[in-house]
Amino acid sequence: MKHTLSVLVENKPGVLTRISGLFARRGFNIDGLAVGETHDPKISRMTISVDGKDQPIEQVTKQLHKLVNVIKISDLEESSSVERELVLIKVSADKQTRPEIMQIVEVFRSKIVDVSGTTMMIEVTGAQDKVDAMLRLLQPFGTVELVRTGMVAMARGKQVT
Amino acid sequence: MKHTLSVLVENKPGVLTRISGLFARRGFNIDGLAVGETHDPKISRMTISVDGKDQPIEQVTKQLHKLVNVIKISDLEESSSVERELVLIKVSADKQTRPEIMQIVEVFRSKIVDVSGTTMMIEVTGAQDKVDAMLRLLQPFGTVELVRTGMVAMARGKQVT
Repeated sequence: MKHTLSVLVENKPGVLTRISGLFARRGFNIDGLAVGETHDPKISRMTISVDGKDQPIEQVTKQLHKLVNVIKISDLEESSSVERELVLIKVSADKQTRPEIMQIVEVFRSKIVDVSGTTMMIEVTGAQDKVDAMLRLLQPFGTVELVRTGMVAMARGKQVT
Repeated sequence: MKHTLSVLVENKPGVLTRISGLFARRGFNIDGLAVGETHDPKISRMTISVDGKDQPIEQVTKQLHKLVNVIKISDLEESSSVERELVLIKVSADKQTRPEIMQIVEVFRSKIVDVSGTTMMIEVTGAQDKVDAMLRLLQPFGTVELVRTGMVAMARGKQVT
């Protein structure tokens, strides 16, 4: 089962190393990770996407709680939170294929952010399934390169994550 | 000076720990970090935003090159690359302030992704300066919470990052 952990940490050197080390020692591979400051620059939020099929994620969250620089951990459920990822993808594109790519971009309400004679760069944002569907459609044109931010998530409504 | 490092690494447990440890040992604080798979699931790309004002970043990149799981490192310049970040922000909003917030969202071509009786959640994407400008405008309404993906970047044109 995929888990999305939202972890508030102190914004200090070494915190990331301690946290990622904890996952690595237990054999968890982090699929996606997004780290950025919150509205308080002394505090950062890490959103960690991890596959917990082989081992219970509870073991890791318990250990995380013990780290001094960890302030709060939430295991976000898909149903009650908004999940978003940003992907930049560069695909091969020429005069023939450009209109077709632009149609796909329009349907998915994505954005074309750069064009060259032989390529197009597209910005896609959305939940995992939308992003994956878009990438599957673009793949046949030839993916030159791809960069993903990793998932971020926030609880719906007035509730604080 | 701010640097954006784009690092291709093998997608294995422990790689993130080794890389973040290298930065921590040299006293570099990572401002933002985005980790996600590339189109080859065996390879991940890390985009690292780091402030190199106190120490030359070259020292770190040289050390990074020596790590076995690191495939390629690019120090991306702002001028020749597209930089994007995704931010989810939840602000206080009631009947009075909602129209004003919606106007700001429209001007910045952002998206409202959730609404409750007392809050609104907004998805903002763009380069650093656009995102920061948007957040400054929303702050007076009262930030309930904020999550950032960290910057991702890709070289313009047909060039591969």
